[in-house]
Amino acid sequence: MEKSALQKARASYQPKLPKALQGAVKIAEGAPTQSVDNQEDIKKLFPNTYGMPLIEFVQGNEIPAKAINVGIILSGGQAPGGHNVISGLFDEVKKLNPNNRLYGFLMGPGGLVDHKYIEITADFLNDYRNTGGFDMIGSGRTKLETTEQFEKGLEIIRKLDINAIVIIGGDDSNTNACVLAEYYAAKNYGVQVIGCPKTIDGDLKNDQIETSFGFDTATKTYSELIGNIERDCNSARKYWHFVKLMGRSASHIALECALQTQPNICIISEEVEAKDLTLNNIIENIAAAVAYRAEQGQNFGVVLIPEGLIEFVPAIGRLIQELNDLLAAHGADYKDLDKDAQREYIMAHLSAENKATFETLPESVGRQLSLDRDPHGNVQVSLIETEKLISEMVDAKLASWAKQGKYKGQFAPQHHFFGYEGRCAAPSNFDADYCYALGTSAALLIASGKTGYMAIVKNTTANAENWKAGGVPITMMMNMERRNGEMKPVIRKALVELDGKPFKTFAAQRDEWAKNTCYIYPGPIQYWGPSEVCDQPTKTLELEQK
Amino acid sequence: MEKSALQKARASYQPKLPKALQGAVKIAEGAPTQSVDNQEDIKKLFPNTYGMPLIEFVQGNEIPAKAINVGIILSGGQAPGGHNVISGLFDEVKKLNPNNRLYGFLMGPGGLVDHKYIEITADFLNDYRNTGGFDMIGSGRTKLETTEQFEKGLEIIRKLDINAIVIIGGDDSNTNACVLAEYYAAKNYGVQVIGCPKTIDGDLKNDQIETSFGFDTATKTYSELIGNIERDCNSARKYWHFVKLMGRSASHIALECALQTQPNICIISEEVEAKDLTLNNIIENIAAAVAYRAEQGQNFGVVLIPEGLIEFVPAIGRLIQELNDLLAAHGADYKDLDKDAQREYIMAHLSAENKATFETLPESVGRQLSLDRDPHGNVQVSLIETEKLISEMVDAKLASWAKQGKYKGQFAPQHHFFGYEGRCAAPSNFDADYCYALGTSAALLIASGKTGYMAIVKNTTANAENWKAGGVPITMMMNMERRNGEMKPVIRKALVELDGKPFKTFAAQRDEWAKNTCYIYPGPIQYWGPSEVCDQPTKTLELEQK
Repeated sequence: MEKSALQKARASYQPKLPKALQGAVKIAEGAPTQSVDNQEDIKKLFPNTYGMPLIEFVQGNEIPAKAINVGIILSGGQAPGGHNVISGLFDEVKKLNPNNRLYGFLMGPGGLVDHKYIEITADFLNDYRNTGGFDMIGSGRTKLETTEQFEKGLEIIRKLDINAIVIIGGDDSNTNACVLAEYYAAKNYGVQVIGCPKTIDGDLKNDQIETSFGFDTATKTYSELIGNIERDCNSARKYWHFVKLMGRSASHIALECALQTQPNICIISEEVEAKDLTLNNIIENIAAAVAYRAEQGQNFGVVLIPEGLIEFVPAIGRLIQELNDLLAAHGADYKDLDKDAQREYIMAHLSAENKATFETLPESVGRQLSLDRDPHGNVQVSLIETEKLISEMVDAKLASWAKQGKYKGQFAPQHHFFGYEGRCAAPSNFDADYCYALGTSAALLIASGKTGYMAIVKNTTANAENWKAGGVPITMMMNMERRNGEMKPVIRKALVELDGKPFKTFAAQRDEWAKNTCYIYPGPIQYWGPSEVCDQPTKTLELEQK
Repeated sequence: MEKSALQKARASYQPKLPKALQGAVKIAEGAPTQSVDNQEDIKKLFPNTYGMPLIEFVQGNEIPAKAINVGIILSGGQAPGGHNVISGLFDEVKKLNPNNRLYGFLMGPGGLVDHKYIEITADFLNDYRNTGGFDMIGSGRTKLETTEQFEKGLEIIRKLDINAIVIIGGDDSNTNACVLAEYYAAKNYGVQVIGCPKTIDGDLKNDQIETSFGFDTATKTYSELIGNIERDCNSARKYWHFVKLMGRSASHIALECALQTQPNICIISEEVEAKDLTLNNIIENIAAAVAYRAEQGQNFGVVLIPEGLIEFVPAIGRLIQELNDLLAAHGADYKDLDKDAQREYIMAHLSAENKATFETLPESVGRQLSLDRDPHGNVQVSLIETEKLISEMVDAKLASWAKQGKYKGQFAPQHHFFGYEGRCAAPSNFDADYCYALGTSAALLIASGKTGYMAIVKNTTANAENWKAGGVPITMMMNMERRNGEMKPVIRKALVELDGKPFKTFAAQRDEWAKNTCYIYPGPIQYWGPSEVCDQPTKTLELEQK
């Protein structure tokens, strides 16, 4: 494996561990816990893993040097630091007993079901310490949900004499980890299941989980790029840059990047929904900022757009809903019509409100909404280039204002979408340390005989040595939600809270940012150098925790 | 101005100066020089600035502590390090005499003509040391070409008592700097003009100029992103990423990024032209790699595409030429036809060869070539999303191979265009040092009474203190070329040389890279840390100079 100078130098970084995890450890248990909602339902569904106490690891000498074999699974989208969770887990498992073995299931949860795995050895692991990516063992999106899968997994677990499975994933994967833990506990199989909070989207977060790993590195990488674009924008003074950012439904990434870079405009999906804003409202807000800046001779700016925006515009949500129903009922005769006739057909059948929404959309987007469907008949929202849709509509709005004499200026848009650029960046010091501590905690939870827990690390705005590590019962974070028409126990997803400090901090400054040029240029992630440059947590974390 | 932690910490970086520039300096002059071609023509056009010697600054005590005022101009596209050229110039000018003044003309060469300027003071400058962007004084694309402009510029030069103008720009801007130098010399105005080699594209390069500034930082920033995408690609194992890279006509950026990251495929426009490859040849080469990898179960990969590719495909060049002529002659009646009729019209009028080329293009691209024109009637090549064009054509080729049973696999493309992300990044240590030395040299050239020179720094693969600084007569790099139908003296543009070491090194390895997965992950630019991580020049420079 040929390596860059940075890869070589970074390999020797020794992640900082919380003091409590550095030597011998004992467990401090809290009181029994309750799920965040629907306590009776959750308790009934998880009789063996409900109500367990919160756990904190403190200095002591209680956790035995146990013989354990562990299997690890990476689930879902990549996030920087996954390899360090595995490193922390490996080092602690070997510290507990050098004969302990760690197995990696390949290409995600499917590896457990299909019995595809490798043993992770020290030599093999050393190539991946402090690296980004999930390429060490691969990841995948197979959902572990059925008893057939659980039983199939058990075969290989027995064959390899594995005591515990660690699942590194987002909210859904951790929900499934808990279902698996409950199943193995109910069957008395003696197999523990431990989760780890992963996602760049930042939406796996609650009273117990301060942040999901990868959010720090991904947002810093996107902010580097946004800052560079801002500086270009402020130098050339002739473009409006529309930047779409990954993050699925939640706008945490967009909000964090806005706090780091102070762009002229950042749209927050959760606010759009809460205020029942229409697409036209959003467009008018942007166009007003463009027009204001044009008056000052500033025909340039930067706009951040969260990936999930379209679905959060209530009017468009309602339109999509009606289109789904309409095409499900009449899809067959509709399909054979030509393009223009299809449009007429839709306009004739939509309710007045949704027809009005449909008419405001550029034709290409209307077409995507009404025609391009996934195999389940749903709109493929991710295919819509929201950044272009919005800049086109702003352009049209400005043109109409120009006709009315309300706007005079040049509007030249540029478009960007950042996602893949940050999911596999080499983890920042924060993520490298945080993940290593999560992996270490996962090993200690296993050694303590726990199951149905997620490894957690708290107090993360302090120095790493003062972080607090432990575990949270996964059931504690659950409630009941409707999924595909059925009520299911799930970990509650964290969207941006409009009364939370990060959003309020942003909201208090955004008018200033829109009018003036207040760009901040964070630059690339630094691994060496002054601590204030290398070791800072995200603005979101700082505002939430301090 | 609110600043990031990196901005604050980086502000105090003291660029490393070559030993020869650290103390008192004298000039070592070489023999008289000749232009690279068309010596008689160039000599005739530049009687006052032709044939001057190469200059090297060495330790000594000859250059007087002269009283001089200097004006500086940023010309053309942004490149990391421009602010450091200004810093080096400022510091040296003030060292020569604390009463010396430095003026910055605003928003490019137009600032000289329109008399828009600011005085650059120590306080003002300190906010911009070691930063990216050209926002300190702005840049612009006005060409300084006419005597009216030169005379208008002279008015403000006289008013501010300026002795010399420094123009920071690419090949065209430096050509114009020389024309201006010659004009002021011929008129005996006593105003010197000095150039500095700037461009991320890397195409201002020759025996005297080892590299243009900004190329180092920009290619390292793009390589960071490409490496991150490669790691994602290698983790998810389900996408082919098509990455278009800025760089105008030349493929230096794509080649350098390929050497840094070892993608599966990198197209080099200069090779396409030299081998008279068709678009279909290119598509078949890529599709063959996709098919080969699919057989090994690797339905993923990364392809780098230089921005200027389309114009370098000889068949498309010929097609564009005929379309230009055709539409110039018949544009009026053509315009009123509907879409399908326009296509028929074109097909009916094109020569057989160009018709065949036109038919292989996706309809949307054919339409862009035949309809969307700039005000001069030329195709707007930069509007063509080459990365999508190529992936669409690869997709179609694979589909036809699948029908013939020659291909079995999944092909899911993703698209990226990197340009604005790197033009204004904070300069790497290399660019920070290199630019500071260029600025210092420019000041010394002025103090030595020189005009029509470009500041240069050589031996740049050694440690900065062993770099050699000096000046090259701009006429030495000139030849005569046809521009808009007229023969003009211009600095010869450096395209990728197919018998140069960078290309040959790439060509020797690319089959291996296509078949196997040999990705290298360079990571983000580091400003602190091990020297082998922070201070390395580009691979191109290393291969060319060593």
